[in-house]
Amino acid sequence: MSTFTLPSSFGPTAPAARRTEAGLVLAQKASAMIIVMRAQATAKEIADVVARVESRGLRVNISRGEERTIIGVIGDERPVDGTQFEVMDGVEKTVPILKPFKLASREMHPADTLVPLDGMKVGSNKIAIIAGPCSVESRQQILETAFAVKEAGAIALRGGAYKPRSSPYSFQGMGEKGLELLAEAREATGLPVVTEAMSPEQVPLVARYADVIQIGARNMQNYALLNTVGESGRTVLLKRGLMSTIEELLMSAEYILAQGNSRVILCERGIRTFEKYTRNTTDINAIPVLKQMTHLPVILDPSHGTGKWEYVTAVARAAIAAGADGLIIEVHPHPEDALSDGAQSLRPEKFAQLVTEVMRIAQAVGRS
Amino acid sequence: MSTFTLPSSFGPTAPAARRTEAGLVLAQKASAMIIVMRAQATAKEIADVVARVESRGLRVNISRGEERTIIGVIGDERPVDGTQFEVMDGVEKTVPILKPFKLASREMHPADTLVPLDGMKVGSNKIAIIAGPCSVESRQQILETAFAVKEAGAIALRGGAYKPRSSPYSFQGMGEKGLELLAEAREATGLPVVTEAMSPEQVPLVARYADVIQIGARNMQNYALLNTVGESGRTVLLKRGLMSTIEELLMSAEYILAQGNSRVILCERGIRTFEKYTRNTTDINAIPVLKQMTHLPVILDPSHGTGKWEYVTAVARAAIAAGADGLIIEVHPHPEDALSDGAQSLRPEKFAQLVTEVMRIAQAVGRS
Amino acid sequence: MSTFTLPSSFGPTAPAARRTEAGLVLAQKASAMIIVMRAQATAKEIADVVARVESRGLRVNISRGEERTIIGVIGDERPVDGTQFEVMDGVEKTVPILKPFKLASREMHPADTLVPLDGMKVGSNKIAIIAGPCSVESRQQILETAFAVKEAGAIALRGGAYKPRSSPYSFQGMGEKGLELLAEAREATGLPVVTEAMSPEQVPLVARYADVIQIGARNMQNYALLNTVGESGRTVLLKRGLMSTIEELLMSAEYILAQGNSRVILCERGIRTFEKYTRNTTDINAIPVLKQMTHLPVILDPSHGTGKWEYVTAVARAAIAAGADGLIIEVHPHPEDALSDGAQSLRPEKFAQLVTEVMRIAQAVGRS
Amino acid sequence: MSTFTLPSSFGPTAPAARRTEAGLVLAQKASAMIIVMRAQATAKEIADVVARVESRGLRVNISRGEERTIIGVIGDERPVDGTQFEVMDGVEKTVPILKPFKLASREMHPADTLVPLDGMKVGSNKIAIIAGPCSVESRQQILETAFAVKEAGAIALRGGAYKPRSSPYSFQGMGEKGLELLAEAREATGLPVVTEAMSPEQVPLVARYADVIQIGARNMQNYALLNTVGESGRTVLLKRGLMSTIEELLMSAEYILAQGNSRVILCERGIRTFEKYTRNTTDINAIPVLKQMTHLPVILDPSHGTGKWEYVTAVARAAIAAGADGLIIEVHPHPEDALSDGAQSLRPEKFAQLVTEVMRIAQAVGRS
Repeated sequence: MSTFTLPSSFGPTAPAARRTEAGLVLAQKASAMIIVMRAQATAKEIADVVARVESRGLRVNISRGEERTIIGVIGDERPVDGTQFEVMDGVEKTVPILKPFKLASREMHPADTLVPLDGMKVGSNKIAIIAGPCSVESRQQILETAFAVKEAGAIALRGGAYKPRSSPYSFQGMGEKGLELLAEAREATGLPVVTEAMSPEQVPLVARYADVIQIGARNMQNYALLNTVGESGRTVLLKRGLMSTIEELLMSAEYILAQGNSRVILCERGIRTFEKYTRNTTDINAIPVLKQMTHLPVILDPSHGTGKWEYVTAVARAAIAAGADGLIIEVHPHPEDALSDGAQSLRPEKFAQLVTEVMRIAQAVGRS
Repeated sequence: MSTFTLPSSFGPTAPAARRTEAGLVLAQKASAMIIVMRAQATAKEIADVVARVESRGLRVNISRGEERTIIGVIGDERPVDGTQFEVMDGVEKTVPILKPFKLASREMHPADTLVPLDGMKVGSNKIAIIAGPCSVESRQQILETAFAVKEAGAIALRGGAYKPRSSPYSFQGMGEKGLELLAEAREATGLPVVTEAMSPEQVPLVARYADVIQIGARNMQNYALLNTVGESGRTVLLKRGLMSTIEELLMSAEYILAQGNSRVILCERGIRTFEKYTRNTTDINAIPVLKQMTHLPVILDPSHGTGKWEYVTAVARAAIAAGADGLIIEVHPHPEDALSDGAQSLRPEKFAQLVTEVMRIAQAVGRS
Repeated sequence: MSTFTLPSSFGPTAPAARRTEAGLVLAQKASAMIIVMRAQATAKEIADVVARVESRGLRVNISRGEERTIIGVIGDERPVDGTQFEVMDGVEKTVPILKPFKLASREMHPADTLVPLDGMKVGSNKIAIIAGPCSVESRQQILETAFAVKEAGAIALRGGAYKPRSSPYSFQGMGEKGLELLAEAREATGLPVVTEAMSPEQVPLVARYADVIQIGARNMQNYALLNTVGESGRTVLLKRGLMSTIEELLMSAEYILAQGNSRVILCERGIRTFEKYTRNTTDINAIPVLKQMTHLPVILDPSHGTGKWEYVTAVARAAIAAGADGLIIEVHPHPEDALSDGAQSLRPEKFAQLVTEVMRIAQAVGRS
Repeated sequence: MSTFTLPSSFGPTAPAARRTEAGLVLAQKASAMIIVMRAQATAKEIADVVARVESRGLRVNISRGEERTIIGVIGDERPVDGTQFEVMDGVEKTVPILKPFKLASREMHPADTLVPLDGMKVGSNKIAIIAGPCSVESRQQILETAFAVKEAGAIALRGGAYKPRSSPYSFQGMGEKGLELLAEAREATGLPVVTEAMSPEQVPLVARYADVIQIGARNMQNYALLNTVGESGRTVLLKRGLMSTIEELLMSAEYILAQGNSRVILCERGIRTFEKYTRNTTDINAIPVLKQMTHLPVILDPSHGTGKWEYVTAVARAAIAAGADGLIIEVHPHPEDALSDGAQSLRPEKFAQLVTEVMRIAQAVGRS
């Protein structure tokens, strides 16, 4: 790839460097930690741990219990990796005390962040409903869907042009042609467009067509991609990984925020569990947890959260009742012909019914 | 318990016998199954499988694909254990087609079952809210709570006298004294009482005091206990195990129903996942799934579902929005003194606020 | 069960009472804890928490970091429920420092506990292999299996007389008749018998026939049952729940040990995960973790751990390589006729091959 | 991306196009499926489903049971998305019958694939042990480690130059400088180098320095990356995602194989479960499952599988006993100074001991 030239802002090393510097600043007081010594730890082992902590410019607070000694690490000026201490003799475990995210934290930024999307602001009192097909499949399909979801009350159009599929033999999306059709649908309906980028190199192309770049669940920890969309400055819809913790979701948001881009909408979309009657398990708890922990807007995707169209509307109502700022819903005019995710797509008339029901819930929780 | 004599109908062998007979009748057409042969299966291996199926009085339907042969098993008169076939030469796997529950199935019993509880019917249009402390701790505590939750709108009082605790050193409940206090609280407030039985031998005693016998999450597959409460005829609140599928919950309900007791209320209370910010993950999907699959009423426990009082109200609203028939909520006048589950208990004033908010959601979904 | 009379020591309240007393003694120094205050906690909130800690006779160690205050709780004389503090104003979370088990802990009891089983000692240098069918089905079946597994090298015979089945329509075991057949097989072969008790009331009957009482995975947290087998004094094979943590397994062992019964063999048998190609996921990590944390012997059940006979031998070898003290294996002379678990049962000749391979591994790790 | 020029073989659209064509060929007979109709399905609903199946050039096999009709789909010439049928009226569910992978399947390619690595062949009778630090941190560190692991018996050196970290503030790796140091260590010791590429654009650079390109767990479903390493023709070490099924791992291998690159080594490295005493749960079952299902070599990473150095050796022994073709182990001369994964890194002397113990197990299973 010797002929390969990245624009400087997309370079693979630049973000790392910048992140490192940012890290040094951002993480300044971020890593208070408790070191629990084993019951049999000797005085020398304790002294060695203390010495190592202090050698890093940190202060200790020693608490000698009847059974064991606990060493608090305070006043740190850089991130400390607790695992380094876990290999020292006499150490049983380390317990981090502070949350590892800062820019995404409501503690650091108490006011809600409102992300502008066309005329409205996601995260405000008004519920934002994004809808459209899983994949863009044809001009006819995307235009028909766009008009239908707009009429039903959606404020943005979703549709995938690049599709991450577990099988290399499945439909992989229409690529740039799909992006062009999305742009045409925006032209025709006025709806802003949400679509996924799957790799850093796709970002500039997707950014040319999309209003919001979606980071899919499988890419939630694709850090090269997170850095690139962070640098792009474009609004990002960040979906939770299907087996990622809420904390990891916020850490991935932190990657984007650390690039100076705070236009991030978080999306709960169901996690993988042992339950077999649904495709995923919608983590409804994540809504109040995220609203408490972060200032970023939070929406829910009941289509992936359940995987079956029959359950989508009930879970959409639940999301708004729990405090979500919006929804992203898969709608297809003919789900039985959909090239992907047919089973979880709503027909336009069902979607219109969903919007009506969701709006009643919105009013019941004092939103519109 | 030397003086304790179980009525003959509570014997350990009777239910087994009756279950077997019942099974023969109930399961008559219950086990259609697909047997998938390996690509390399020989004609003899296929013939052997067919012969074995037919030797059990079942019919086969053979489908020869280009790559492999698939054998459908039809018209069965008894439950067939697919795993028996999986050890035969040439068999790749078996796929059950029919759901394994019958009495609990909405297909067999389309109309909603309404479970009477004092004046009201759980499963009807009216939302049922059950509330009270995790454990009965004192006369003062349970009476104070009972009056408070009644005033706020609860229709039944919960409180544990026998507590399943993961540590043998934790408070194990007040035992029969706790049951007496619950009865006194019912006397004083008119609220029916919901309390847990942890073993078959406790059932007669608990049934003497309680209106509803709760089967806790850890006992969802305690089959001796399920049979005993089935035989007791008393209303049962069956909580989903924290590691159980929805199908397993319905199979456990089936145990109770198979004893002739159809007064069963199902309760989603959160499942165990990898997420660490909450104690459990509330499976909100389970609400529409259960309402579709079974005629039994379904309630949700957001106290255990989240494990933190800050999130209880949001998830309670979500439950009703998703179609739950009611809620069970932990309320304690002084959570900081609670002998168990303090972190997830609401103070009475917070509970009253929850009821108000939930009722607004109920109206938004056409309930009261 | 009309003629069934439990000895007074099997009553439902006695164990609770005794447990409470035991708890007060055993847990004396057991609950050091860290209370993490929120960043915004006020001086009054901190003082309130300190006052409450001290009002319980505990000491505090206050550590004021740059961002937040952390309160260590020391010198406790009883178990403290951290969740009580989590509802106080200004508290973010509590972190337990000490492990909650004591009697099961290797820290408290460094030497390996050897559990006598017939002539040998489980937990010693010699590998203990227990084998037999899932269920006792007939005299012919159990005797044939008993002779076969003895000849192959098993040191005990397993077989279920009472079977926990997720369906009420599945075979529930032969009951007492099955116990009699197991005793006959012991008589004929000299192999001690391992069989399951599913409820407290079954324990005296099972104890009359069995050398080792098995507590099944579904009953790992059936505390009434744990107390009863603890009191029985009989050797207990305690299987890990399919979604229980290692810590919970040790807490369940603690229930048995707290009744004065230290003849406890722990059994890893696979946990429930999202993986679909196997019935469960064998947690091989649990072997070295348990050997480090507890003095009790640890065996592994690769039949349930995998759910498919093709994988049983490979995982049996792995268990011994990882340090397990033994194995429990399902063997059936005709798996295709087994009334339960046919798919994961080995034929006797495959079992003999397994023993040969496992013994080679045993020698490679210095055991016999 | 206007200034961005990819060599034609690295284009974002080319792989998709080629994949589509390949898919049409490869998947020719790949998608037999069963469609289960609801009990209440009408004759018209059944006829509609049959018509739709046939309209796609597929044949049906109809099986009318007493309760419901089951439609087998046969002879397909392209992948059929079952979910399309699940939205049709009267359909309860669809069940795929054939495995979705072909090139990775042992059915299609019975003989073991041997992947050459320097002088040896991974997948042959000889156990392959790859070892080295999590991250390259300095010239001194990587050289010291390389010499130590070579002396102990490792056949390749691992070390990360680009590190996926959940925090943007953690050490992100040395980048190209790290690659240079790895190359220097290869020069000095003769050990081939295994190192990770995190994005498609890094692949050409990493390929310049590395003998084996590692795809990390977080990137197992980064399809752009999979296509790129597939096209590169370089040997790939593909780690299972911590949230991925075995089938998904094989589908990701299929992406690489579909690009014509069959030099793929699969690596089990632990999955995420609810267990808290270990960082991950090593899925030891995956070893015999993968050895049965695929012809590709399979190794295990006990460092990530356990997350704690104390457990690494026991699980390494287990892996070889279960049939793994090799191991990848984190070794660091001073784990307490490691910039990442210190807690799970072995000191060189412990690693040498591990190799000795593992080799004894290898002999016990007839390998060397």
